[in-house]
Amino acid sequence: MDDDAEDEIMEATYGALCENGYAGLTMQDIADESEKSKPTLHYHYGTKQELLLAFLDYLLDEFHERLEGDGDDPADELVSLLTPREDEVGDGFRTAMLEMKAQSPYNEGVRDRFVEYEEELKTYIEDTVRRGVEEGVFRNDVDAEGTAEMLVALGNGLRTRSVTVGKTDDELRATVETYVETCLVDGDGV
Amino acid sequence: MDDDAEDEIMEATYGALCENGYAGLTMQDIADESEKSKPTLHYHYGTKQELLLAFLDYLLDEFHERLEGDGDDPADELVSLLTPREDEVGDGFRTAMLEMKAQSPYNEGVRDRFVEYEEELKTYIEDTVRRGVEEGVFRNDVDAEGTAEMLVALGNGLRTRSVTVGKTDDELRATVETYVETCLVDGDGV
Repeated sequence: MDDDAEDEIMEATYGALCENGYAGLTMQDIADESEKSKPTLHYHYGTKQELLLAFLDYLLDEFHERLEGDGDDPADELVSLLTPREDEVGDGFRTAMLEMKAQSPYNEGVRDRFVEYEEELKTYIEDTVRRGVEEGVFRNDVDAEGTAEMLVALGNGLRTRSVTVGKTDDELRATVETYVETCLVDGDGV
Repeated sequence: MDDDAEDEIMEATYGALCENGYAGLTMQDIADESEKSKPTLHYHYGTKQELLLAFLDYLLDEFHERLEGDGDDPADELVSLLTPREDEVGDGFRTAMLEMKAQSPYNEGVRDRFVEYEEELKTYIEDTVRRGVEEGVFRNDVDAEGTAEMLVALGNGLRTRSVTVGKTDDELRATVETYVETCLVDGDGV
């Protein structure tokens, strides 16, 4: 299968998850969003479960690309890392991801992908916090490792709250900004 | 049905959720943990879905009792509110709750209970933060409402991370303590 065909199936999986959630998702739902037939999907991926693991790998690859930072202001970069992108389809996809997270204890493949994602996010945040301290943007007593652990948990909780109680993206962003400004940014200037 | 009978069924539901998770839970699983038969459960609660909503109400009642604070040190109280109690059975129950949270968009009854829970938690945290500022334990520039929003999201994210990537309770507690000590506590004393 060439890259274009794979991308097409991954986009179809994304669309089907937004539309149907995780629990009720069928291979037919994915085929309906795709140019490929259901037998073709089974031919390339085996089971639905294997296709969904390939989809999580695809998200990880996209995430790697996103992490190739452009040396932005470290405070802006933390806010942007922890709040949803504008092109991220809202509720449907986030609900599906929360359903998949709850599968971690039952499915080692799913768990491995979330562990990898969150470890990489944490390392990247840690580096960004260190850079902020070095550049004099953040207070010099900030603990990079503890802050990164906190922010990964906070990012998780914000997305969970957008699903569970319907927080808007603007509210999520305001919460991260408040944290960065009050707990990290050096109020006395450089 | 008297209170003892109701308590017995709620404890059985708790046990069955710990054991089986939410997605695969049957009325028979609950009956197996209870002194009551499956037909008796249906007689009192109707469907499994209605029994589970009654269970969420039961958790809300327990939560109200827990919130009758005893005027503890506000920093200790925040840490204790946001980290699991020692008697809270770990992974199984938290996984089941995460599965139920992911049901919020599909089930208004579930959503209403989580909204009520998180609103009450937020109000209580806000009051505790204000008390901490008044008592001179917290810095006087702390924004109680923004801090409460942050801490409710953080508590959500910590529990999600314990399910998804297997964080231990000690790690969760350390993260909350770090936040409270570095961002809220007044380092210069009263």
